[in-house]
Amino acid sequence: MVQTVYHTSVNQDPDSLDETFGLHPAFVDEVEDALFSKKNERVRKLVAGLHPADLADLLEHLEPKQCGQLVETLKDQFNPEVLPELDESVRDTVMRAMGFEDFASALTQLDSDEAVYIAGLLEPGERTAVFEQLPAADRMQIEASLEYGEETAGRLIQRELVAVPDYWTVGETIDYLRVARKLPDDFYVVFVVDPRHRPVGLVELNRLVRSKRPVRMRDIVNPDMDVISPDMDREDVAYLFRQRDLVTAPVVERSGRLIGQITIDDIVDVIEEEAQEDIFKLAGVGDTNLYSAVIETVRGRMSWLILNMMTAVGASIVIGLFQPTIEKLVALAVLMPIVASMGGNAGTQTLTVAVRSLATKDLDSSNATRIIGKEMLAGLINGLLFAVVAGVVAYVWFQDLGLGLVIAAAMLINLVVAGLAGITIPIALDKLDIDPATSSTVFLTTVTDVIGFFTFLALAAVFLL
Amino acid sequence: MVQTVYHTSVNQDPDSLDETFGLHPAFVDEVEDALFSKKNERVRKLVAGLHPADLADLLEHLEPKQCGQLVETLKDQFNPEVLPELDESVRDTVMRAMGFEDFASALTQLDSDEAVYIAGLLEPGERTAVFEQLPAADRMQIEASLEYGEETAGRLIQRELVAVPDYWTVGETIDYLRVARKLPDDFYVVFVVDPRHRPVGLVELNRLVRSKRPVRMRDIVNPDMDVISPDMDREDVAYLFRQRDLVTAPVVERSGRLIGQITIDDIVDVIEEEAQEDIFKLAGVGDTNLYSAVIETVRGRMSWLILNMMTAVGASIVIGLFQPTIEKLVALAVLMPIVASMGGNAGTQTLTVAVRSLATKDLDSSNATRIIGKEMLAGLINGLLFAVVAGVVAYVWFQDLGLGLVIAAAMLINLVVAGLAGITIPIALDKLDIDPATSSTVFLTTVTDVIGFFTFLALAAVFLL
Repeated sequence: MVQTVYHTSVNQDPDSLDETFGLHPAFVDEVEDALFSKKNERVRKLVAGLHPADLADLLEHLEPKQCGQLVETLKDQFNPEVLPELDESVRDTVMRAMGFEDFASALTQLDSDEAVYIAGLLEPGERTAVFEQLPAADRMQIEASLEYGEETAGRLIQRELVAVPDYWTVGETIDYLRVARKLPDDFYVVFVVDPRHRPVGLVELNRLVRSKRPVRMRDIVNPDMDVISPDMDREDVAYLFRQRDLVTAPVVERSGRLIGQITIDDIVDVIEEEAQEDIFKLAGVGDTNLYSAVIETVRGRMSWLILNMMTAVGASIVIGLFQPTIEKLVALAVLMPIVASMGGNAGTQTLTVAVRSLATKDLDSSNATRIIGKEMLAGLINGLLFAVVAGVVAYVWFQDLGLGLVIAAAMLINLVVAGLAGITIPIALDKLDIDPATSSTVFLTTVTDVIGFFTFLALAAVFLL
Repeated sequence: MVQTVYHTSVNQDPDSLDETFGLHPAFVDEVEDALFSKKNERVRKLVAGLHPADLADLLEHLEPKQCGQLVETLKDQFNPEVLPELDESVRDTVMRAMGFEDFASALTQLDSDEAVYIAGLLEPGERTAVFEQLPAADRMQIEASLEYGEETAGRLIQRELVAVPDYWTVGETIDYLRVARKLPDDFYVVFVVDPRHRPVGLVELNRLVRSKRPVRMRDIVNPDMDVISPDMDREDVAYLFRQRDLVTAPVVERSGRLIGQITIDDIVDVIEEEAQEDIFKLAGVGDTNLYSAVIETVRGRMSWLILNMMTAVGASIVIGLFQPTIEKLVALAVLMPIVASMGGNAGTQTLTVAVRSLATKDLDSSNATRIIGKEMLAGLINGLLFAVVAGVVAYVWFQDLGLGLVIAAAMLINLVVAGLAGITIPIALDKLDIDPATSSTVFLTTVTDVIGFFTFLALAAVFLL
């Protein structure tokens, strides 16, 4: 895997374009060496000109001690834009290295949505310490946004935006933009508001540029906009952005007043994070990641393993019911994991599709019945196929036709049950307003293990002994 | 779960904002009823004014027959913008209902990136039939883009863009924009090119608006842009957009000539699709989804189940080695699934984090050794904890201290192995340029099943009999 040293400016050489992106390991090594031998000038020179996101990546790649050392070396040159790009656990290290005062001053230099995002992840104690260093106006604005739930649109609000009255002309708007001082770093639309500061629509900048100066804003305004409430679930906001190919959307409070905007860059992060969350929940990883410390990693995964331990003991109890049967025919012990394992896998396939379809709103009550029918049918077909395979394997291996027929029947039953459980468990959890990604895998494997072991061993007890 | 009938225009009522989005099931029912009773006027009225993405959702929710019927009912009123929003299998139904001629004419009305996206998903036979109906210029442009691999930036190129020479003034640029006819539907930047049509940078529209008319474009151009090659992996493009918070990026061919742009709306889809792909690959679902027909669904999941069948038989062979041992101590058969299952789950946790970290480029050779060490340590701690739990369960259940010690030892070994395998398998696959999401779960469960059953039964054979 060849990686380029990350390019930070125009890269006009087409030959170097199709390589893999990311920080070059050799570059990371070089920085580590310079830090180790305390060549501060060399360190500063190496990281100068790095894009904030790349400097963040570098900090994440270093050992915590070196990470702090790098921040202390940079001191005044440290770009606040790095902070929102950092993983939570690394940001703690960086904050400690900066001190609360510098950290607070960095927050004031960021866009409001970024400052809120960072403040929202601080521990209560740290938050108090940082807030004490903030100017009152900034602190109140951040605290107002933090009132909204963690997964809501409120946390994504960027207060900085451009809004003009609907009676203004294009010329007046452009003149205002030329002299205005507190504009967002980057913006794509001008919001048009009524006298009570309620949005009546928006004017895309390309529309503004192409209109003549005397034209009134109200005559070119696009009223077809989607308005976001701060209480909205951020997943719904992301859905709306994807569905309508939005770049920005106005946020209004209950009175209808425009209080900010949400922009696509935050939504891109939401989409990535929500998909990641689903993956991690399905695997029972919890709220940890690659950078979490060992103890947090262990703790994050513990609850899932405890649940799985209980499930596994439950399955063992089912097996325990048939000890005399197994004693008489030990081949049952040899073959039984096949039935359970196939059920678990087939069920997980269906479950995964169902969980994602619920998340992307492709699956809802209007098509649930049809989809459940389809999954059961798929389970039946797969069940028939693998019943034959398992039956043949068992017959050839143990030269016992009865055993072959029993494992075939158990396989068929378990794969149909797996298909049914795989689709109905997430739908049921969703109806109960429980995130179907969180707990469905445990339910599913409990079902497929118990049914798998039970049908196989019970059928054997009845027909083979 | 309350759902709104999807709002398609300004929604100023804040009370209705915080509800769940998506098509209202009652609305879908109404359309179905109207279709069933062939009330064509009613159908047309119901769907009139629906956003293209919502009409696409509606078509996806209907049975294939009704979906075709709806398209035929709409006929001339059918908005081509619906096509890119449709799931592949539903689009086939829609295409058949439209006929190749109308379908081809719809393609010509779309932006080039959308037309290429759709054409790329057609079966070879269908593609020929559609291409025959296309004007030569459109066909050649689409064919040129289809030359690029399916997962490359080339497939995302939007040919429509605004590029001006660097010696133009802001005034000349604005005048050109006012009279130009073939502009993209929406754009956020003006690209500045040299005489050989190579991009020298870009001017964000907000910068253009805020500059005075006599200023030269070369004086306000932002040269800090990221240039995309059409051969670039689309995952790398998405990474770049996320990393740099881009909204658009120029695409250049080998000579450096600007041939198009990639915009954030396509990247949002790529991010969602790539994350979805990872989830589906980890669960072995293959390239199917909720809307795939039963037979495709079965086929898509088959290869995974076949692999899993082989793995399961492999594990059974390991158990088979110890038949005499199990015959003497049937408690082993009862307890053995616990060891294997815990190993599989702990391994999957580590594996999932590793696969995602590789995808997001958080894990690479510069930190691999440290992360492997961390995961082994986490495995060791979890192993010690669950060794105690399993040992106590076995001892209490079967009143056999030896059995408790054997299961504890097996658990410890299997969880350390699971941690090690969970992190090294995806890293190894990645080094071999195999997508770590695709096949790693099979490898992992093979390892944890075999090691789990083997250590437990072998330790029992040596120490308990």
